[in-house]
Amino acid sequence: MTVELVRAAVRDWMTAFAPPSATVSIACSGGADSLALAAAAFAELDEGRLDAVTVDHQLQGGSADRAVTTAAQLHEIGYRTVRIETVTVGSVGGLEAAARAARYQALRPDPGGLVLLAHTADDQAETVLLGLGRGSGPRSIAGMAPWRAPWGRPFLGLRRTDTEKACREAGLTYWDDPQNVDPAFTRVRLRREVLPLLEDVLGGGVTPALARTATMLAEDLQALDHLAARVLADVWQPGGAVEVTELVRHPVALRRRALRAWADAVGAKALTADHLYRLDSLVTGTRRSGAVRLPGALDAVRTGPLLRAVPAG
Amino acid sequence: MTVELVRAAVRDWMTAFAPPSATVSIACSGGADSLALAAAAFAELDEGRLDAVTVDHQLQGGSADRAVTTAAQLHEIGYRTVRIETVTVGSVGGLEAAARAARYQALRPDPGGLVLLAHTADDQAETVLLGLGRGSGPRSIAGMAPWRAPWGRPFLGLRRTDTEKACREAGLTYWDDPQNVDPAFTRVRLRREVLPLLEDVLGGGVTPALARTATMLAEDLQALDHLAARVLADVWQPGGAVEVTELVRHPVALRRRALRAWADAVGAKALTADHLYRLDSLVTGTRRSGAVRLPGALDAVRTGPLLRAVPAG
Repeated sequence: MTVELVRAAVRDWMTAFAPPSATVSIACSGGADSLALAAAAFAELDEGRLDAVTVDHQLQGGSADRAVTTAAQLHEIGYRTVRIETVTVGSVGGLEAAARAARYQALRPDPGGLVLLAHTADDQAETVLLGLGRGSGPRSIAGMAPWRAPWGRPFLGLRRTDTEKACREAGLTYWDDPQNVDPAFTRVRLRREVLPLLEDVLGGGVTPALARTATMLAEDLQALDHLAARVLADVWQPGGAVEVTELVRHPVALRRRALRAWADAVGAKALTADHLYRLDSLVTGTRRSGAVRLPGALDAVRTGPLLRAVPAG
Repeated sequence: MTVELVRAAVRDWMTAFAPPSATVSIACSGGADSLALAAAAFAELDEGRLDAVTVDHQLQGGSADRAVTTAAQLHEIGYRTVRIETVTVGSVGGLEAAARAARYQALRPDPGGLVLLAHTADDQAETVLLGLGRGSGPRSIAGMAPWRAPWGRPFLGLRRTDTEKACREAGLTYWDDPQNVDPAFTRVRLRREVLPLLEDVLGGGVTPALARTATMLAEDLQALDHLAARVLADVWQPGGAVEVTELVRHPVALRRRALRAWADAVGAKALTADHLYRLDSLVTGTRRSGAVRLPGALDAVRTGPLLRAVPAG
């Protein structure tokens, strides 16, 4: 039974990640993924710590009715507390990004609470492909984390077809959002055009392969961030300077991360790859002295063994 | 002039990577990428340390003539020493893999020598996409290294169109290998179907984005391998056991790499992700005692604070 597989995913996730007494909100659009999640969570978790939320984005005609129908389904599953959050979607960064921002804002729980989201391996694969186009490095293709408080994703190891099957087994009628087939959305084209072509060319298994790679990448990045923070702590000098001769002994992947964290700490935010490349050149001594202009009207200046940030001159 | 851009790529690569007195072989198929490389290397490097090689794979009718024509072009560029290596391609792992294995075997230089290969950002993007389908983690999408002795790749930052333009500027007639458009090859379909579709869906810039991400990933992986080797050295005990209580303090990305290196050192080669997951469970104490079967007829056994490999029981 696929219902069992889906419940096990919730159970395993709770064991691995959930703080013991956290309240748990289920985000549910009425689609197969999140309806299966709502049913599985209700079966697995103590009712007293559980509620459900559905977001009305007000982007499609009938969206308010849609939210009411979903709320009714959640009540029928057994949820006593079901919230409908009505949001107004802006336009910053495009419609998909603005809708996502509004949704996460509306779903954000009270302190100590967590929210379960129904993203599957299919969503993860689409996210990785989206990140490939950004080209901003490993972080852009590490996908979504199974747990980054307050957001939990127990279904990243399941396929979308699993959740559809689980809904059918449980007699739940899920909503097929017409936006899921609208080629105006990048994600829809990745799902319906790019992934099937990649499956064909590479001989299958692409979606789980992308999801697996994303998981391992996320672990790698977490380790490197952790280690870079320690490196920065080691080279940090009174007044916010950095001791270069010690920093230079570390591999470039740690140096650049430590330099990004240092710049962030002294007020130079959002460094580009080019900033980091030039900062690292200052450190490795290709340029023994000199300055690199940083965001925030700062110059990074190397003098002997020290790198410091000064007001841009 | 694109010729200048291409020469600068060779010059920069030599400065960054080449051992000062190494002899340099140029691998040249007669295609635009490698013909541009041969011309640029001849312009930039001391003739005395330079030769050129072309490989006849004997896979297409007229391949011997093709090799002779390429050799003649190389002589005309100015190369005094041009070798034609005739190879017999097997079938292990499919035609593309077998041809690559035979080619690298034939190109392998004498000790102290290095070989320049003309792979561009386009080849790198195809390699990353190939790796996505394997799903064996970050390593499978880190692409080709700019330098892994004896192989050097100065053109990873250039586009294929740059090399075509450079050839035209230099009056070099390059060969259009008909296999470059044969859809029987996975790479050809990635180049001619998947990448154009991804460019269209993601709004352009995908090839350089993939190449950039591959470079950063390779740096990350190098750092993690380096750090994991140090972790392993720290926890290594006389007789090849591993001290678990120390190992467990490190992030999972380092633990798994250290465990892979440990298993390799004690004779258990080619661990799968599942082996590593179970080994790590032994270490983190989800299973405080017990054994994990490894390749090479070995069991990894945890007893108290020690992990050791014993003949499978």
